[in-house]
Amino acid sequence: MNGADSLCDTLLANNVDVCFANPGTSEMHFVAALDKKPQMRCILGLFEGVVTGAADGYGRMADKPAATLLHLGPGLANGLANLHNARRAHTPMINIVGEHASYHIQYDAPLTSDIESLARPMSDWLHRIESAANVSPAAAAAIEAANQNPGGISTLILPADAAWTEAPEAIQHAKPIPATALDTQALQAASTALGNGRKTVILLSGKALRSGALETASRIAAKTGARLLAQQANSRIERGAGRVMIDRVPFNVDLAVKALEGTEQLILVGSRVPVAFFGYPNKPSVLIPENCEVIALTQPGNDLPQALHELADAVGADRASPITTAERNATTLPTGSLNAASVIQAIGVLSPENAIICDESVSSGRDSFKSTFGSAPHDFLQITGGAIGIGIPLATGASVACPDRKVILMQADGSGMYTPQALWTQAREQLDVVTIIFANRSYAILHNELKMVGAGEPGHNARRMLDLDHPAIDWVHMAQAAGVEAARASTLDSFIDILRSAIARKGPFLIEALI
Amino acid sequence: MNGADSLCDTLLANNVDVCFANPGTSEMHFVAALDKKPQMRCILGLFEGVVTGAADGYGRMADKPAATLLHLGPGLANGLANLHNARRAHTPMINIVGEHASYHIQYDAPLTSDIESLARPMSDWLHRIESAANVSPAAAAAIEAANQNPGGISTLILPADAAWTEAPEAIQHAKPIPATALDTQALQAASTALGNGRKTVILLSGKALRSGALETASRIAAKTGARLLAQQANSRIERGAGRVMIDRVPFNVDLAVKALEGTEQLILVGSRVPVAFFGYPNKPSVLIPENCEVIALTQPGNDLPQALHELADAVGADRASPITTAERNATTLPTGSLNAASVIQAIGVLSPENAIICDESVSSGRDSFKSTFGSAPHDFLQITGGAIGIGIPLATGASVACPDRKVILMQADGSGMYTPQALWTQAREQLDVVTIIFANRSYAILHNELKMVGAGEPGHNARRMLDLDHPAIDWVHMAQAAGVEAARASTLDSFIDILRSAIARKGPFLIEALI
Repeated sequence: MNGADSLCDTLLANNVDVCFANPGTSEMHFVAALDKKPQMRCILGLFEGVVTGAADGYGRMADKPAATLLHLGPGLANGLANLHNARRAHTPMINIVGEHASYHIQYDAPLTSDIESLARPMSDWLHRIESAANVSPAAAAAIEAANQNPGGISTLILPADAAWTEAPEAIQHAKPIPATALDTQALQAASTALGNGRKTVILLSGKALRSGALETASRIAAKTGARLLAQQANSRIERGAGRVMIDRVPFNVDLAVKALEGTEQLILVGSRVPVAFFGYPNKPSVLIPENCEVIALTQPGNDLPQALHELADAVGADRASPITTAERNATTLPTGSLNAASVIQAIGVLSPENAIICDESVSSGRDSFKSTFGSAPHDFLQITGGAIGIGIPLATGASVACPDRKVILMQADGSGMYTPQALWTQAREQLDVVTIIFANRSYAILHNELKMVGAGEPGHNARRMLDLDHPAIDWVHMAQAAGVEAARASTLDSFIDILRSAIARKGPFLIEALI
Repeated sequence: MNGADSLCDTLLANNVDVCFANPGTSEMHFVAALDKKPQMRCILGLFEGVVTGAADGYGRMADKPAATLLHLGPGLANGLANLHNARRAHTPMINIVGEHASYHIQYDAPLTSDIESLARPMSDWLHRIESAANVSPAAAAAIEAANQNPGGISTLILPADAAWTEAPEAIQHAKPIPATALDTQALQAASTALGNGRKTVILLSGKALRSGALETASRIAAKTGARLLAQQANSRIERGAGRVMIDRVPFNVDLAVKALEGTEQLILVGSRVPVAFFGYPNKPSVLIPENCEVIALTQPGNDLPQALHELADAVGADRASPITTAERNATTLPTGSLNAASVIQAIGVLSPENAIICDESVSSGRDSFKSTFGSAPHDFLQITGGAIGIGIPLATGASVACPDRKVILMQADGSGMYTPQALWTQAREQLDVVTIIFANRSYAILHNELKMVGAGEPGHNARRMLDLDHPAIDWVHMAQAAGVEAARASTLDSFIDILRSAIARKGPFLIEALI
């Protein structure tokens, strides 16, 4: 057994059995090792941003890490933007980055680069394997780190000679990392705050947004009068009809300040103090009122649903009823013109039970969250780090994790063009994903931002940088290029027809909605 | 005038008048500044790998830097792979990386990351602007660094508040950096070596591969009996019929060792000692014979054509005739089946005078260099850092620099899928680029490498990671998605017909050759 075999066996022994990959020469021994193990599912992405984005979607839905296989510094670099999103989502993930044979690095061959420097900003844990004997212990440590609460990005640099050298047979098992106990002072502080009659927001994120934890939180709110809110960006929310209805902190700075106005106490559960996505002249960076007291109920390492249980006990809310359950919304389909709102409304009505709704609709879908409160129960996955190009890969990985669930992706056209290669992976793996392109043919969000800068009407150069027309992107051709069936809708009726049939069938389908 | 205006004016005052861009919110003030200056040509890439790859192609052909505009850490990350190639090509380039307002960074908003850590491995020069007053001096310093001999990658981090704050009117001019004088001892050593009768190779790269410099080198070879060779990977070679014929060090380790066998002295002119692209078990890293003496004629900072002149003077070769001029090859078109060799042969015959031939054909085109020695005179641009996904962007940028020249791109399908978004930029800018896809529907190079690993016949997992069929990528649809006309050739006759008409017309065209 060589180091590559040792790595593959360690992954499998620790329940990591999906590898999203784009290998190169320096990873050939690992490819050979994977080839001997049919129990490892190897999924090719035709660009590394697909690989890391799919591993993110997989990790969010499977609650366990996938491995990625990336080719040296440049291959890692191509995957960094979606690693950035995954790190912000606390998704568990094990990146295997191939590297030159250790003795070869000194010669600065063309593909040589400082992999650590590239990896560090988007990794929670980073290690360069020293030798074949180090492979299994290092891989087990990477898995332990990724599986901590909340999850994290582990990056393992694998020199080619560590892969091809004879390794010990012993395979290391990752130690399960138990959640750390909730700090009793924090529990006391939160419990006291909830009883003092001041205006309190409980801000939730991470696994506090799964349906069970949300019910607990909702009982606390019912008992104490506190308001529940979710962070602006979250890894995964279990929501829809019959589940607890929770809104998010708005993206827009002014709306966010308004939403948090008057808040005297903020209790953080897996979340952080809300800050503006960008700094703007004469607008605040921190979105809560200046005198708002912040109480962090949880710290990294805590079990969030358990923390909410303890808080519910402490405030005597364990038997209160959740008050904010969403009702199934009207099943009346929208009429009128085809636009972002009517597309979202149609999705809200037609999305089936237990769907996974992925959202990279950016400006077009800013209101989609509200209009799907009462959709059939679903999981909601969103962009977490602001690095566009996550949507198609994220939906791909979510579908790999949950092959029996329909995945519906709301995708803006500008960000969709970052990683369209993921459509090919959907076609190859025959994943059950419906991609809906909001084709407004512009970086609409930037047009808004340019207005906010006070630059007046955009001129030639600004339009050349913010508009996506001339030529318009033909998304039907794009999907067909990748082997995915597709159709274009230019009226609301045709959109509804196409969406209905896309949902009724199995397998990937793309709808270009000319909004 | 704010910092963004100051930056725009400094670029223009220093003859940087093309900006390849993919902006975001934090760059809106710079977009507004660019919008006021129609003399700046702003070219949108729908993914940052397009932006940096196009700036590379532009810099190689224009011999001056373009600016790039990238959105924070993730936007930079998306452009790093092609920055890696550009750095290896010593292409002059000015990257403007937008950053949060300086006071906003402490809040770790979602898009925050360690930009320096990401930028450093792929930058020759790196600076974070401290204030609006610092913008013009910093930009001038970036331009000076990029324009040094050979060129370099300058990365300038622009915090949003430095862009929006009032700045001084004074615009800084970059100082011209004169070439450093050739080291007389190095000249003496090279000249002595060329007279001592031992087997000598002069290894050229960089601007030593422009036609004038090559003629000088060829006179030296004619006079002294030395052999000329080019590095395996080079930024740009002026070659073809009537020009000096020079071969490159082969990519394959065994062939490279063979090509350099018996070499007793190696004279470096803008080049480095040849090393293997990858380390392999039981193969050497350094490709020259163990006892070969290495003489570096030049150092960074030297003017390479001038260095060759001085060497020619020193060995009395200034009046010798170049001996290795390539003859115009047969104008007979190939017959038989459509395969990589016949595609390359057809390109060799049909490529017009003064074309720019870009090569990312990878394994399919490994022999294309030899079969185009006698093509009509052309510039040859290739992948320099091994980071695939350069081809379509590189051709795009070369065409922006040289709108009156036909650009022909030989593109492998696997690497073409990394940055197909560049086709859209070709359509929007109506660039005169013919893209030829070598559609072998596999990562063919990796199949070879897997064989070398001794893994035997690839099994299910290996084929899932190395084959690009199931489904096959439809490149005609891909081009049409981006607004580029395209056709598919499945026979040699149809390929020749399509290529001929694609060359005869103006504007972008893509040919999918089913080899």
